[in-house]
Amino acid sequence: MPRYALKIEYDGRPFCGWQRQATLPSVQGAIEAALAKLEHDLPSIGAAGRTDTGVHATAQVAHCDMRRDWNPFRLMEALNHHLRPAPVAILACAQVDEGFHARFSATERRYLFRLLARRAPPTFAAGQVWHIRHALQLAPMQQAATHLLGLHDFTTFRASQCQAASPCKTLDALDITCEDLPEGQEFRFSLRARSFLHNQVRSIVGTLERVGAGAWAPEDVKTALDARDRTACGPVSPPDGLYLTGVGYPSDPFAA
Amino acid sequence: MPRYALKIEYDGRPFCGWQRQATLPSVQGAIEAALAKLEHDLPSIGAAGRTDTGVHATAQVAHCDMRRDWNPFRLMEALNHHLRPAPVAILACAQVDEGFHARFSATERRYLFRLLARRAPPTFAAGQVWHIRHALQLAPMQQAATHLLGLHDFTTFRASQCQAASPCKTLDALDITCEDLPEGQEFRFSLRARSFLHNQVRSIVGTLERVGAGAWAPEDVKTALDARDRTACGPVSPPDGLYLTGVGYPSDPFAA
Repeated sequence: MPRYALKIEYDGRPFCGWQRQATLPSVQGAIEAALAKLEHDLPSIGAAGRTDTGVHATAQVAHCDMRRDWNPFRLMEALNHHLRPAPVAILACAQVDEGFHARFSATERRYLFRLLARRAPPTFAAGQVWHIRHALQLAPMQQAATHLLGLHDFTTFRASQCQAASPCKTLDALDITCEDLPEGQEFRFSLRARSFLHNQVRSIVGTLERVGAGAWAPEDVKTALDARDRTACGPVSPPDGLYLTGVGYPSDPFAA
Repeated sequence: MPRYALKIEYDGRPFCGWQRQATLPSVQGAIEAALAKLEHDLPSIGAAGRTDTGVHATAQVAHCDMRRDWNPFRLMEALNHHLRPAPVAILACAQVDEGFHARFSATERRYLFRLLARRAPPTFAAGQVWHIRHALQLAPMQQAATHLLGLHDFTTFRASQCQAASPCKTLDALDITCEDLPEGQEFRFSLRARSFLHNQVRSIVGTLERVGAGAWAPEDVKTALDARDRTACGPVSPPDGLYLTGVGYPSDPFAA
């Protein structure tokens, strides 16, 4: 069966997450339902990152196996047609060799976390940002972030139900920027690693928010990391502001 | 009665527009309902720009008269509390003198129009951008835009039901930028004038899109303008991508 890689954008709000569940709407379920309109009895699809309930993606990658040979552009167009009106869109489609696996071939994941700090609630971005009502200081958060870069045992920043074999991960980038808005601030946390633990990004952002608010000192984050103890973590952020923004492969399947 | 200026952000999708209507949800109606939770029998509120169905605002300005003296910050907070969960937020509130009128004191309006050009439908921005499925050329649109700058009779770009006394307006700015996305382009049209005719921005953007697509030459826009004939206009764009982004006054009521 010919295999295709799909680059997928979705608004996570109406979904229980990527992974198909019996009774809840999932992104995987929406795409598999669209695929089922094209061919019968297809195998289930696999994604690079199994995003949680309410988590978004601007460039999730999945692969699917088809019975027929599809022109990749036509496959993308047909899927987008059948996906409507769900907030899921196939941005790109490419045929890949059978050795390609969206999850196991991936060598890098990139995430963005958006945090809106202002008094008024979000309107356009409701459910797409973490909204807090107090101001944050950028520099202490940036200072705290340096403690998390590199190879560490991230037990502190890992959900108790995480199924990864090891809590040791290498965080390759954790950049934080701030845009001053007329009435508030928008912070953007950009993270990059080969792979992440379950809830690692939300645990890190929730802890850094405490630093930005002045409740934690930047060095407290190093102490928490060194504790290797889940109870040392700050509050876990809500999923609203989290986006899977890219997946890296040894060779980009979507390069033209 | 003390008067307050309100800076208002709203997602226009669920509304029939700014103006209150008997049976349809409006932005004015939502804010007046929130005000009615604070005091009874208040006069109706006025806005700088009466946006149409589906049109958004990041900085609409309205004024309201209250019976009691309100701390402006507390008034903003109370309104935001009662507005939830409608996608309407009061971003700023200031007491102004009784001579201030959101509409008649305004000396400038700024609009943004967002156009997403890509094959896949929008997800996060559904209803918040005009989605077209073909690529556009930026330079011809910019060239065409120069013909519209300055004082002109804009009859061609004016809705037939427009109630303005004169079709002559001075367009002070019409800037167009393009951001290349991984799969497509986002165009942003920024317009500035003392005031606009009904449907003027959507008529201009819809016509410029034809230029970007190559169906019109840039000079055709000058010919259309000079015709002073509504039938010479290109297609009117949908409201989805239109945002009222600012209102100017001789003295900024929200300056701290």
